[in-house]
Amino acid sequence: MKKNSATENDEKRVVRLLIHLKSGKKFIVKTGKDFNTNFGLIKKDDLERINTVIKSHKGEEFFITEPTFVDLLKKVKRGPQTTHFKDIGFIIAFTGLSSGWRVVELGTGSGILTAYLANIVKPNGHVYSYEIRKEFYEIAKKNLEFLGLDKYVTLKLKDCREGIDERNVDIVISDFRDPWNALDHIYNALKPGGFYIALFPNITSVYELLKHIGNYPFIIEFIGEVFYREWVFEEPALRPKNTGLVHTEFIVISRKITK
Amino acid sequence: MKKNSATENDEKRVVRLLIHLKSGKKFIVKTGKDFNTNFGLIKKDDLERINTVIKSHKGEEFFITEPTFVDLLKKVKRGPQTTHFKDIGFIIAFTGLSSGWRVVELGTGSGILTAYLANIVKPNGHVYSYEIRKEFYEIAKKNLEFLGLDKYVTLKLKDCREGIDERNVDIVISDFRDPWNALDHIYNALKPGGFYIALFPNITSVYELLKHIGNYPFIIEFIGEVFYREWVFEEPALRPKNTGLVHTEFIVISRKITK
Amino acid sequence: MKKNSATENDEKRVVRLLIHLKSGKKFIVKTGKDFNTNFGLIKKDDLERINTVIKSHKGEEFFITEPTFVDLLKKVKRGPQTTHFKDIGFIIAFTGLSSGWRVVELGTGSGILTAYLANIVKPNGHVYSYEIRKEFYEIAKKNLEFLGLDKYVTLKLKDCREGIDERNVDIVISDFRDPWNALDHIYNALKPGGFYIALFPNITSVYELLKHIGNYPFIIEFIGEVFYREWVFEEPALRPKNTGLVHTEFIVISRKITK
Amino acid sequence: MKKNSATENDEKRVVRLLIHLKSGKKFIVKTGKDFNTNFGLIKKDDLERINTVIKSHKGEEFFITEPTFVDLLKKVKRGPQTTHFKDIGFIIAFTGLSSGWRVVELGTGSGILTAYLANIVKPNGHVYSYEIRKEFYEIAKKNLEFLGLDKYVTLKLKDCREGIDERNVDIVISDFRDPWNALDHIYNALKPGGFYIALFPNITSVYELLKHIGNYPFIIEFIGEVFYREWVFEEPALRPKNTGLVHTEFIVISRKITK
Repeated sequence: MKKNSATENDEKRVVRLLIHLKSGKKFIVKTGKDFNTNFGLIKKDDLERINTVIKSHKGEEFFITEPTFVDLLKKVKRGPQTTHFKDIGFIIAFTGLSSGWRVVELGTGSGILTAYLANIVKPNGHVYSYEIRKEFYEIAKKNLEFLGLDKYVTLKLKDCREGIDERNVDIVISDFRDPWNALDHIYNALKPGGFYIALFPNITSVYELLKHIGNYPFIIEFIGEVFYREWVFEEPALRPKNTGLVHTEFIVISRKITK
Repeated sequence: MKKNSATENDEKRVVRLLIHLKSGKKFIVKTGKDFNTNFGLIKKDDLERINTVIKSHKGEEFFITEPTFVDLLKKVKRGPQTTHFKDIGFIIAFTGLSSGWRVVELGTGSGILTAYLANIVKPNGHVYSYEIRKEFYEIAKKNLEFLGLDKYVTLKLKDCREGIDERNVDIVISDFRDPWNALDHIYNALKPGGFYIALFPNITSVYELLKHIGNYPFIIEFIGEVFYREWVFEEPALRPKNTGLVHTEFIVISRKITK
Repeated sequence: MKKNSATENDEKRVVRLLIHLKSGKKFIVKTGKDFNTNFGLIKKDDLERINTVIKSHKGEEFFITEPTFVDLLKKVKRGPQTTHFKDIGFIIAFTGLSSGWRVVELGTGSGILTAYLANIVKPNGHVYSYEIRKEFYEIAKKNLEFLGLDKYVTLKLKDCREGIDERNVDIVISDFRDPWNALDHIYNALKPGGFYIALFPNITSVYELLKHIGNYPFIIEFIGEVFYREWVFEEPALRPKNTGLVHTEFIVISRKITK
Repeated sequence: MKKNSATENDEKRVVRLLIHLKSGKKFIVKTGKDFNTNFGLIKKDDLERINTVIKSHKGEEFFITEPTFVDLLKKVKRGPQTTHFKDIGFIIAFTGLSSGWRVVELGTGSGILTAYLANIVKPNGHVYSYEIRKEFYEIAKKNLEFLGLDKYVTLKLKDCREGIDERNVDIVISDFRDPWNALDHIYNALKPGGFYIALFPNITSVYELLKHIGNYPFIIEFIGEVFYREWVFEEPALRPKNTGLVHTEFIVISRKITK
């Protein structure tokens, strides 16, 4: 959804969340025309009946409401290595990241983590995000516009290993291959006591960072991983799901001191 | 930080974060007088040298800076069953909880979760928190004042099983023994599409809630648990810590629909 | 390996393990005729070259050797709810189960756990296994013969809730829906100090057993779950696999005392 | 308990397992004299009443029975880095290790893993175990005698990096710092298709082994970790224990092929 190119028609159409009651499956839909699902057709007039249960022509029930940030997020285009929300939540809660923080992100990717960060620091904070791959820069731009968060983010098509423009930021989060080659810039961008978070899929990269970061005045506060386990309830049986995610990324949390 | 008993002197004193460089141990200190640690005495003048490394009389190095929300949080009084930050982070990231949300919390306890929620929803959101135990109500009150978050929270010394005053809130979070006895009120407090999160230490309570909640128009979005595992680096060896937290609370996330 | 339908020819044919070197994929093969894989045809003469590396006609390399018990096990027919080897290993190591033990198994299923138990208690121990479903009894029978373990096992097509014939056994292991309906018989079958192990996919069944077992002179030694996490090495990157098994069965280990 | 030095008196005394019914605490006791516990004194005559419940002079109830291998194991002297039974169980179940196998162990330590291996391979198998530290060699010797397993084990006070005497063994298990310096010998000791298991507390050592083992004709079958989680039942509440072991050792399982 590019705002600039929005036609007059588009402007009047509104985004809705549809939840299929039996399966819990969710759909993001625009009002203004009929919507077709595997569970049957839903008429455009029904899409206006917000906060009610409606039926498809097959008789399947849907709940229709306004989507939240997380609902919308599930519908954006994402790359193969998107930061998982469990890891984002852990970082937020560990550091106290909140409204008003100034954030530097290194490695925008498809902008999912960027969006989460913007959603947390709004309305008074800001996210500066660096990416060197033009195609991801463009995807992230579109995603942030779709989510209505673009005003809280400055996307930069720039190699952070050659410099970070910001100073005195509260937190730097990196999610690219070799952040040890940007440690000087990361250190300079942070305020004293500020957090540097590094994300890595491989333990061998964690090891590489730890060897390098020892040369800088950073204190390591956390090295580790976050997991969750989902349970299922099929009355009367309650049990964990049999398979699940057991690895996404390792998290290293450090903090700048000033010698 | 309002404190009724604060003397004029106190008002001028400022809170600092001291990090012992060798061990990483942290201290929250007020300026204005000498501070004594196991690692030696730190002079009151040194406590003014913000964002620098200072030495105790034993020669141990400390970094001195302004504390963040999370630094301060580690120093507040807490009860035995405080919600763990990993669980709070998961809830924030799962629901998209952010600045501006209106939150109802059932079971204030010592106010740790309350403080996290306030820190996220500020400056335009608000937390309404219910507690029936007077002593916890008082502890939470003090903690929120110490953290400077009291203006974003309304503490209520009231049994939520007898009613919840708010309407159309974005999220309700319960952390007490028998929330199934408050389901009518929880349902009525929520906006359509709003989230209800229940926390329980026992799986048997999860089962009890699941049996009851089936009678209400809620959709279950998540039943499960969150974990983290910490690693330690003692060059050149990198390994997980041998022991750790393997259980805090089960999380049930549901969402209100309107029949 | 007794097989009623074995022709004279078959008798002379021998079982081999083929490991495809590049992928690690394994094949159990009989000698005596050419063998066809996705990686190309292997000639029957090559199948005689034990403990060497051979090539398919496509030039793919295979290592050929004698299969172990576990190699063979991967090729037997199994039902949907087979006990996982991680759980079997935990039970063996927790109880000290070893050569010479007398074991009662309740719920033979496809005989995988039966086979493991037989393999451990041989040559002087014995497994008595109860099953009420004729089709599983037959599958288990074939599997144990294929594995050459049938002489260490007595399969019984009998409902254990109506009685267990053995007395003074070292261990009873149950893997069926409602073992609380067989607790009298389980208790009577065990020697004093003997172990009773119950396996359940659901926590609600664990709870049910725990409520019932309190009426018998059993001591609970363990309630819990076993996990493993696999890592992958793609030089130079070392990392955990992204997805994995996070649940199979809950294990309850108790021990008989005599009032 | 050295057998050689056993006095006539000792010979007549028998080992018993005492289980304190209320707490589940276990004691290994010799008959022939009174036994004192925190729960009160137990008279020597009562220690003869095997497979019954007896009382201390304080009225506390104990169940008295013959100890199993695992009961005895809990009472032997152990070093700081003993292999955990969950890891031993996983190795047994993954490889099919069983009665009759010939095993080489590198790094005897206090002999706990040695004892488990001996207990599984008896009566016809054998364990050859290498240790370079005289004090551990002696501890292991005593432990194996106490457990009655010494006849199934050959302990060697010898550096395996300088050679392994055995040939054609079913499995080699190493638990010392730098097994990559013994890979030639490990390879030569194994039969084709035989298993080599390496245990390491650090992931950095796993990485080191993986880099070296690529130069040998081994197939990697498993790299990973094993966990268990214990639950507690305090009627009516059922929940996981709050803290637990989250790391012991990484396990690498490989298999010899012959080029």
